[in-house]
Amino acid sequence: MFFHMKELQYEAKPSKPDPIFANQLQEILGGQFGEISVALQYLFQGWNSRTTDKYRDLLMDVGTEELAHVEMLATMIARLLDKAPLADLEKAAENPVTAAILGGMNPQHAIVSGLGALPADSAGNRWTADYIGASGNLLADFRANLTAESQGRLQAVRLYEATTDPGVKDMLAFLIARDTMHQNMWKAAIAEIEAQENIVVPSTFPRELENQYVSYDFYNLSAGEESKKGRWAKGASMDSMGEFNYVSPAPAYGEAPKLKPAPPYMHNTPPTTREE
Amino acid sequence: MFFHMKELQYEAKPSKPDPIFANQLQEILGGQFGEISVALQYLFQGWNSRTTDKYRDLLMDVGTEELAHVEMLATMIARLLDKAPLADLEKAAENPVTAAILGGMNPQHAIVSGLGALPADSAGNRWTADYIGASGNLLADFRANLTAESQGRLQAVRLYEATTDPGVKDMLAFLIARDTMHQNMWKAAIAEIEAQENIVVPSTFPRELENQYVSYDFYNLSAGEESKKGRWAKGASMDSMGEFNYVSPAPAYGEAPKLKPAPPYMHNTPPTTREE
Amino acid sequence: MFFHMKELQYEAKPSKPDPIFANQLQEILGGQFGEISVALQYLFQGWNSRTTDKYRDLLMDVGTEELAHVEMLATMIARLLDKAPLADLEKAAENPVTAAILGGMNPQHAIVSGLGALPADSAGNRWTADYIGASGNLLADFRANLTAESQGRLQAVRLYEATTDPGVKDMLAFLIARDTMHQNMWKAAIAEIEAQENIVVPSTFPRELENQYVSYDFYNLSAGEESKKGRWAKGASMDSMGEFNYVSPAPAYGEAPKLKPAPPYMHNTPPTTREE
Amino acid sequence: MFFHMKELQYEAKPSKPDPIFANQLQEILGGQFGEISVALQYLFQGWNSRTTDKYRDLLMDVGTEELAHVEMLATMIARLLDKAPLADLEKAAENPVTAAILGGMNPQHAIVSGLGALPADSAGNRWTADYIGASGNLLADFRANLTAESQGRLQAVRLYEATTDPGVKDMLAFLIARDTMHQNMWKAAIAEIEAQENIVVPSTFPRELENQYVSYDFYNLSAGEESKKGRWAKGASMDSMGEFNYVSPAPAYGEAPKLKPAPPYMHNTPPTTREE
Amino acid sequence: MFFHMKELQYEAKPSKPDPIFANQLQEILGGQFGEISVALQYLFQGWNSRTTDKYRDLLMDVGTEELAHVEMLATMIARLLDKAPLADLEKAAENPVTAAILGGMNPQHAIVSGLGALPADSAGNRWTADYIGASGNLLADFRANLTAESQGRLQAVRLYEATTDPGVKDMLAFLIARDTMHQNMWKAAIAEIEAQENIVVPSTFPRELENQYVSYDFYNLSAGEESKKGRWAKGASMDSMGEFNYVSPAPAYGEAPKLKPAPPYMHNTPPTTREE
Amino acid sequence: MFFHMKELQYEAKPSKPDPIFANQLQEILGGQFGEISVALQYLFQGWNSRTTDKYRDLLMDVGTEELAHVEMLATMIARLLDKAPLADLEKAAENPVTAAILGGMNPQHAIVSGLGALPADSAGNRWTADYIGASGNLLADFRANLTAESQGRLQAVRLYEATTDPGVKDMLAFLIARDTMHQNMWKAAIAEIEAQENIVVPSTFPRELENQYVSYDFYNLSAGEESKKGRWAKGASMDSMGEFNYVSPAPAYGEAPKLKPAPPYMHNTPPTTREE
Repeated sequence: MFFHMKELQYEAKPSKPDPIFANQLQEILGGQFGEISVALQYLFQGWNSRTTDKYRDLLMDVGTEELAHVEMLATMIARLLDKAPLADLEKAAENPVTAAILGGMNPQHAIVSGLGALPADSAGNRWTADYIGASGNLLADFRANLTAESQGRLQAVRLYEATTDPGVKDMLAFLIARDTMHQNMWKAAIAEIEAQENIVVPSTFPRELENQYVSYDFYNLSAGEESKKGRWAKGASMDSMGEFNYVSPAPAYGEAPKLKPAPPYMHNTPPTTREE
Repeated sequence: MFFHMKELQYEAKPSKPDPIFANQLQEILGGQFGEISVALQYLFQGWNSRTTDKYRDLLMDVGTEELAHVEMLATMIARLLDKAPLADLEKAAENPVTAAILGGMNPQHAIVSGLGALPADSAGNRWTADYIGASGNLLADFRANLTAESQGRLQAVRLYEATTDPGVKDMLAFLIARDTMHQNMWKAAIAEIEAQENIVVPSTFPRELENQYVSYDFYNLSAGEESKKGRWAKGASMDSMGEFNYVSPAPAYGEAPKLKPAPPYMHNTPPTTREE
Repeated sequence: MFFHMKELQYEAKPSKPDPIFANQLQEILGGQFGEISVALQYLFQGWNSRTTDKYRDLLMDVGTEELAHVEMLATMIARLLDKAPLADLEKAAENPVTAAILGGMNPQHAIVSGLGALPADSAGNRWTADYIGASGNLLADFRANLTAESQGRLQAVRLYEATTDPGVKDMLAFLIARDTMHQNMWKAAIAEIEAQENIVVPSTFPRELENQYVSYDFYNLSAGEESKKGRWAKGASMDSMGEFNYVSPAPAYGEAPKLKPAPPYMHNTPPTTREE
Repeated sequence: MFFHMKELQYEAKPSKPDPIFANQLQEILGGQFGEISVALQYLFQGWNSRTTDKYRDLLMDVGTEELAHVEMLATMIARLLDKAPLADLEKAAENPVTAAILGGMNPQHAIVSGLGALPADSAGNRWTADYIGASGNLLADFRANLTAESQGRLQAVRLYEATTDPGVKDMLAFLIARDTMHQNMWKAAIAEIEAQENIVVPSTFPRELENQYVSYDFYNLSAGEESKKGRWAKGASMDSMGEFNYVSPAPAYGEAPKLKPAPPYMHNTPPTTREE
Repeated sequence: MFFHMKELQYEAKPSKPDPIFANQLQEILGGQFGEISVALQYLFQGWNSRTTDKYRDLLMDVGTEELAHVEMLATMIARLLDKAPLADLEKAAENPVTAAILGGMNPQHAIVSGLGALPADSAGNRWTADYIGASGNLLADFRANLTAESQGRLQAVRLYEATTDPGVKDMLAFLIARDTMHQNMWKAAIAEIEAQENIVVPSTFPRELENQYVSYDFYNLSAGEESKKGRWAKGASMDSMGEFNYVSPAPAYGEAPKLKPAPPYMHNTPPTTREE
Repeated sequence: MFFHMKELQYEAKPSKPDPIFANQLQEILGGQFGEISVALQYLFQGWNSRTTDKYRDLLMDVGTEELAHVEMLATMIARLLDKAPLADLEKAAENPVTAAILGGMNPQHAIVSGLGALPADSAGNRWTADYIGASGNLLADFRANLTAESQGRLQAVRLYEATTDPGVKDMLAFLIARDTMHQNMWKAAIAEIEAQENIVVPSTFPRELENQYVSYDFYNLSAGEESKKGRWAKGASMDSMGEFNYVSPAPAYGEAPKLKPAPPYMHNTPPTTREE
């Protein structure tokens, strides 16, 4: 159960409206790695959690914080849209600023949401749960969370570079700092689990059931061997259970497949079709 | 540029058809963390790569291998669908096996693809590029890749538990082993970059520009303090640049927002609407 | 900013697991009119609100309650999935209960979410922000909200009819009661605004700018005049500004359109294509 | 069965081309509340109708009219696109009008549709049946229809404000007038059903089966009590079956949930993971 | 502008309900190549038509017929759903017929649409305009139309094989016959245009502007030369403008690409990252 | 199994960056008829192929070539994005070139992909497998392939017209030439199969089972008889099995449908609702 308090977690006030930047900012609100994604991802992981209490609580705390970030961004976007113009080509042609706005803003910010934030990204794609996941395996999920915070902070930094507005920069500087914490936090949680389970997810599958003779092979599947120069191509494997092995060229263990003809009730093209 | 050879990377032959399992197996072909996802994710990261050659080559090698996995799964699914029945309730009611098949298979495997694999997941959702990304920042992207291999191996293991078919188990045992390698591999690549850059993505954003007074705070936003028990709540931060700090209850740094009224040409509800 | 408390708004305990019903219940969690939809719809309307405080507060209160409903449903679904089997055709064929489960459950509940709730509907479609909206016009939006509560309660009632589990029925009886309140509530809020603005959204557009000679015409566009029997076909219009007028057959006010040929650089088929 | 006549329901001729406005106009053709949505929503409700003939006929009449609106908008958009330029940065940089067009138009109007209308909204999202519904319950569905006409008229009015073209304004003035009628019409149909059934959907579910002690409670779930000032917080409920009751703070009726561990074959993280 | 008459184009009465088949039949109503797709594809092509009148009329006639097919299928599906049960595992386990139904039906047919047709395919995916197109080039579009009729008839035939119900078979026999006509019809229209324009779309692009030295080469990009045996590998090209040429192995005309480093404000991984 | 070689199939070097054109070019990379679509469509058709070897090999060869085209376009787009600016309204307003770029580029090219290609179209929609298909019937599928090459070449030609950059024009001239070949090739493959099977897909369904009395009727469903002037309205049918027959007006073979009331547990609106 949730409670809402009216204060924002941090100020969300631009110096002046900018509907182009409002559109760009949608990316970290409703994009693939935006705040809706992390909020719902962490909350679903928390709600579905069948393991130790501290992890559930961790997920609920951070998921709840991300809801506050959705709120801050929605507020900032609405303010950046203050007085956004409605216009057509005739008006655009007379004024380069209007032309720039018409080009760079999302027309739905006027027509659909009435100068409000949209649950969408900077290209106008509506948010979808395709972006998130909760698998029941914490190591797999915390890696997804670390990914989201990494991509999210990267995008926030690029947006910081894109604006000259001190109010926007200040809010982004707060969100960037929180992403610093959240990357550190998931990194810490991952380290804790890896220390207990080793690194390969899931750790509970018996190693002898997998085809272990290919478990540490790197397959060179392209001309050139630049890929041989990395840590992944030699030395002890990261799980300390094997030795990396660079295999060039990569073998084919299987045969060329030959599928059976389809039964007649399928009305596929039959193989009796003439060969030359 | 690519070349194709007819051999499969590994055998993909079930002992007998099973259209229910064919549908389940679609998850790791065309699902969020399936082989289409990793193939296209690694290839796009490779094609967009503006950095050191060995990383581009690594991405192209592994992306190219994943195409072979798509091929193996498509082949296996087609074989599991051999002779899948077309039937209605009347036929289903006479035969519990037919009833089970009708319930558990995806009808599109007959009606749409003619006993062939679909570019879709086990719930019938078509594959979408919503699942993938390439950001230009390798640490962010390699974390996405490690996530995909972790989720993907978890799903392959669950499918291994779900089947009794030795041919299917054998192919899964190969894919599971390759995911062991790929988790080790991305882990190694990540370690290499973290050693150079520290752990927070992007490492090139000046720390003094972020609001550093919140960069290591954990905010307790729920009743109870179970989340205090983790590594993330105390001690040196993982980036060695700060100290984790558990803050309970979490503060609000911002004010309650009050948006300006919309301009009349928006025809929003005006604030003059009567208060009680 | 939000806070989370660990108690559920209402109990969410089934008498026993039922993975088929777990899938059905997903509809009111992650479907078009499910709890994610209403939670995010109300919150976005609240965050974007540029009008009187009591409406913003109303939206935030109810949006926050809907988050608690998402939580209850996620919890219930996870419990209904306890011990859900992983199985293939061979196992299904030996046991009619297993066959029924395999057919009626969503395989992603095992393979993807590890016996956790999904952000998806009962047909496995992931939730999308296509379902929601916030227009800045409260009368338009409150009508959307009343619609969502009407469709949502209808679905909850159908699910109540579908289950024999007393624990599930009890939770649904709570949600159904809350939907009773929420329909009453939006109805009350709508009545308040309609009393001030009249019923046509938006009320601020000058009537003389619309083509008023068609503002109260009902057009019969099909054979037969059954549609003449309703309140909409005669008498004073609901906005008291006109008189309903049944027009049969309906007129065409425009001409047959004839588009100009495309410019050559478009490479469309040119109109010089031979007439017979 | 349908017949087509070549005349448009109303003229659709702009004074001159304007590819930017063509893109904006897509919103009410192929957007969430555009004409494709209402056409298919009403037709599906009509085709699925299992109730009194006059409602089926009403739905078919209006659904058929909406097809004519799709046609008018498609025609208008095609004309607004006449001679839309194909251009790159070099050309854009020489001419501010070209720059404005390049920015504000949808490139697919040239590359994909060859200066024709798209089944998409003003942000380029293709139309999807996610937008529509037909539940079999007329009161629920007519509320959805009233919502669509309210949102649709609001968007048409905003577009009217956005253009200076008299031909476009004239067509919008027609569509706005029809939306006036359609709001009145659904309002009338709703009133008719509410008079028979009372207001809560579905009316056929026995009240004694819902948890009636919460059927009229308003839960304050945020700091502050602004939400207490509305009609929804006191007085007789709109269905005349109860009394609104403002509850502050809102209670939790349930316990903190504790899910059972997942079975081993799921390979979720087990709860034995170390607490601190 | 359209008119609706109440008669169906053809009868749509099953002998008895069958909710499993109702779900399968959704494929040709709301699937990729279903009747909604062809109806809207032909209508959009007609509305956007900038060429000779007979083609516009052809498109409008056939698009209008397809609306009648949507109607017939919606009616048939609703009838197949008559009395479809709402049930959970407990009921399913007692009755194999109920178990089969629960497995094979789409739960949304009960919960969402109240025993009505859905604008969705047989896997429950909602219809999307991703499936259709109108390019302004009739030869390109008529090929899309012939494709849709070919895929559509194939699916209808598979469904014919899947059912034992004489009423359903009769309606499918009608639709299959219409698809026979529609394939013949598009074939005829294509022949007419190809006779005027030759076969390569678009025919208006000057041949000398393309890199003609590769315009008739077949590239062998796989081991083995089975692909050499077809008509496409030798002899005069189908446009009579060249000679097919089998090239094995295929050449690479380009160099290995090397992208420039990203500018610092992008915060991509810089190429200075250490090579081994 | 696939191998990658580092050389591009053809050069992909623009003369200078142009982020607006980069966005336009996305259409033929990640759009409905772009290179991802043809690559995966041909590969899935190949993998699922249950017929003669030469067709499988044909599909694999061409699918593999299309992967090289994805690669070329990704490379070209990345280069067109070199140094693309990050900017807000303030910067845009000072410089018309910046304004044009901000308007015409996809902001995700900076914020999300860090100056790399996206798996998306020119309107920013992510690629989806909704675009492709593999039915098991080669004639149906080769028609889909011919369609894709026709639409694809049309789009490439329009893009050729849109750019003044000689490097981009050169690459497009190569792709256009390959599309010339691919149209010829699918045309040849289609001719081969039609010669064996006749033209109606599927050819294996017994003609006597369809309702043959409507198999060659053209239904005039609109006012006017322009559609009578085409080859499709008279003369021998294209399959030589009948005679085209123009029927005007078109008949209705079915009755007006009347659906049964829904069972009470559905809570649909009952038909007892009052008629006037």
